[in-house]
Amino acid sequence: MADSVKFILDENEIPKAWYNIVSDLPEPPAPVMHPGTGQPVGPDDLAPLFTMAAIMQEVSAERQIDIPEPVRDIYRQWRPSPLYRAYRLEAALDTPARIYYKYEGVSPAGSHKPNTAVAQAFYCREEGIKRISTETGAGQWGSSLALAGSFFGLEIEVFMVRVSYDQKPYRRAFMETFGATCHPSPSNLTEVGKKILADNPDSTGSLGIAISEAVEVAAQRDDTKYSLGSVLNHVLLHQTVVGQEAIRQMELADDYPDVIVGCTGGGSNFAGLTFPFIGRKLRAEQDVRVVAVEPANCPSLTKGKYAYDFGDTGQMTPLVKMHTLGSSFVPPSSHAGGLRYHGMAPLVSQLVDLGQVEPTAYSQTECFDAGVTFAKAEGILPAPEANHAVKGALVEAMRCKEEGESRAILFNLCGHGYFDMQAYMDYSSGKLADHPYDESEVAMALAGLPSVA
Amino acid sequence: MADSVKFILDENEIPKAWYNIVSDLPEPPAPVMHPGTGQPVGPDDLAPLFTMAAIMQEVSAERQIDIPEPVRDIYRQWRPSPLYRAYRLEAALDTPARIYYKYEGVSPAGSHKPNTAVAQAFYCREEGIKRISTETGAGQWGSSLALAGSFFGLEIEVFMVRVSYDQKPYRRAFMETFGATCHPSPSNLTEVGKKILADNPDSTGSLGIAISEAVEVAAQRDDTKYSLGSVLNHVLLHQTVVGQEAIRQMELADDYPDVIVGCTGGGSNFAGLTFPFIGRKLRAEQDVRVVAVEPANCPSLTKGKYAYDFGDTGQMTPLVKMHTLGSSFVPPSSHAGGLRYHGMAPLVSQLVDLGQVEPTAYSQTECFDAGVTFAKAEGILPAPEANHAVKGALVEAMRCKEEGESRAILFNLCGHGYFDMQAYMDYSSGKLADHPYDESEVAMALAGLPSVA
Repeated sequence: MADSVKFILDENEIPKAWYNIVSDLPEPPAPVMHPGTGQPVGPDDLAPLFTMAAIMQEVSAERQIDIPEPVRDIYRQWRPSPLYRAYRLEAALDTPARIYYKYEGVSPAGSHKPNTAVAQAFYCREEGIKRISTETGAGQWGSSLALAGSFFGLEIEVFMVRVSYDQKPYRRAFMETFGATCHPSPSNLTEVGKKILADNPDSTGSLGIAISEAVEVAAQRDDTKYSLGSVLNHVLLHQTVVGQEAIRQMELADDYPDVIVGCTGGGSNFAGLTFPFIGRKLRAEQDVRVVAVEPANCPSLTKGKYAYDFGDTGQMTPLVKMHTLGSSFVPPSSHAGGLRYHGMAPLVSQLVDLGQVEPTAYSQTECFDAGVTFAKAEGILPAPEANHAVKGALVEAMRCKEEGESRAILFNLCGHGYFDMQAYMDYSSGKLADHPYDESEVAMALAGLPSVA
Repeated sequence: MADSVKFILDENEIPKAWYNIVSDLPEPPAPVMHPGTGQPVGPDDLAPLFTMAAIMQEVSAERQIDIPEPVRDIYRQWRPSPLYRAYRLEAALDTPARIYYKYEGVSPAGSHKPNTAVAQAFYCREEGIKRISTETGAGQWGSSLALAGSFFGLEIEVFMVRVSYDQKPYRRAFMETFGATCHPSPSNLTEVGKKILADNPDSTGSLGIAISEAVEVAAQRDDTKYSLGSVLNHVLLHQTVVGQEAIRQMELADDYPDVIVGCTGGGSNFAGLTFPFIGRKLRAEQDVRVVAVEPANCPSLTKGKYAYDFGDTGQMTPLVKMHTLGSSFVPPSSHAGGLRYHGMAPLVSQLVDLGQVEPTAYSQTECFDAGVTFAKAEGILPAPEANHAVKGALVEAMRCKEEGESRAILFNLCGHGYFDMQAYMDYSSGKLADHPYDESEVAMALAGLPSVA
């Protein structure tokens, strides 16, 4: 059996610019709307929450946006990340498919999230900000911002979704070791949190709720900005270093993906790998199928509505056009906390709407089956979120086998599962449950979508 | 502040041979003795436990021993590992020292241990072995052998020191996910284990006890060999890929260490980084100071006796000449399970005896202080074992500051602490205790050393 092969790049091949897919879209993104006025929001509306650098990137239509040298200097600690040809996995599956994966678990926080955390923290320091508030699901985002905060001397305040706060004390310890402050969300520290706890004292929380709390905290102080780990254009932008490196690495492998598979929660990891490839497709340079895999119990792309909605449960954010299950919908508990979001990045949503991306959904258990198959072959234990991408890739690989076709499949292994061992213990002891979502709850949440002219 | 810099090597610079320090020693290692006959043991005595390949390496005096291509192919998954110049840490310490660290946490098991696990599993498969028994302390070794077993289709049976089995269920889950079987040691599965439990039902176990159990299990079946994660010459040999890469990377940095610091439990990680450098020193090519850091509560090098002793508590192994606290001594509990061993690799012991290596000892709390300082500056959370090397390096760096001297300090960051978050939670909540060893217990254990002519 052939061993798996790693394709590495020299440090000077870390991209010098992020790739902005807005430049290649057939039509501009739907504007972000103010819920009160029903009018598009401008930079001034966003300034209390975000740095001016982030706001300018959010609305930019430039194809290339330079990566500041201090950000690239920190990227150098773990970038370029490796891309592997998974010969061992191919042999285990007995498939003619050529399977490649980009591995972001080599970052010091164990996932792709530092790619944007470092950039956002850098811009905060440049603009004289002292503190950043944020939300986190499973903890990968909070860990990454804690790390970036420690690099740039910023205070980090994290609202961690209650179910993950309880399930993953070690993630919390990681954030605290790097000096961050961590609260379970919903908390009694914000008006939004108090209101939710009053209605439901046992709330397990959700990313939507935690976002509301972090936004509320940021809005209170001038020296504080809010930072989001996914969804927004500038966050997706920062992740495009992943896909740009992958394009070069596929060249080294003398191959090109026929299909790319990514997992989607808020959409930033998916965008990071796929957007540079989709850009080539949009520019008619090279075709590729792109598959988005979401959890079956939080199926915004496959079961949600493409409509204007709030980004958070507390309805404090502007309205964005996206695939949503309704901002009041609280997804069922799962180990893939990073995918428990009612909405989807507007840019990913637009690409699904344009038919450029095929959405699919799989249950947690199916994804862990795939993840363990991958781990035994390749020796890397994926994060629960990443198991969704693995599952999608395995489905494509088995299709190749059925059809007797050798296609190149590329997926993102966006993080390792070292902090998620409770999930693997539950899996191996048969205790991993698939909690389905309540269709009537989604229907009710969708009925309550805000109306936008 | 300058950012830290990574020095990477191309895959074709993964060493093609392991470096055997025996070839450069001024006198041959003391022979391994049979406890019954008092005579040196030969390959036939070891054959029930080890592969012939391992036995031949154990007694070899060749300088270079070829690394089999299938082993190098697996090394390629994460090797060459990075070496960093820790500019950020230097700035945080305000020291004129030039601090470098080699980082083995990039391996799929998160430590240096797969370097030998893969080699040992490969030789087992080549010699038709079906099953490997082993011991593990904190779980890094067991995880690595579980991984290697899954690569080569071998059954892995792990005796895990009870205190770690209880403290680190996630390490156990990792091993089990890769298909290994894991027992708390002492167990009722072996005669040795039963005897120890009869004397002390609450025994927290130790590496010495777990080794006895694994050896007993291996001796029972022809299709089973025993595998040790440290101490023995061939295990240290396999780790020398680390130091050989570091020599090349220090060339890239246009520097050479004035002092190298490593943590020592059984000695393999320490040997891996330092032996290639010590070899150059022994051959009078280039001088270097070498410091070994051990835990203050398991101080074999600083408080033990250089004498013949059993490698295990059950007194089943041959006798080796080493620094030992006595094979009946059970070290106090600590989070650095990988350093809780009564003895020390004979080759490391010999080098200490020759004055080539300076031993030092620090308490767990001091080491965690150092580890958190390192983490905040460099963004990587070290394993508790690695914190000992960090502490030793920080002491050297502060000495540079006091003396106003810029010296180059190289240390090994042998693993990350992602599986050790309970220890960091204890540390940050002030619950991390330094359990001193009982001097009278050591005195009693040393009084019981076997007599060898």
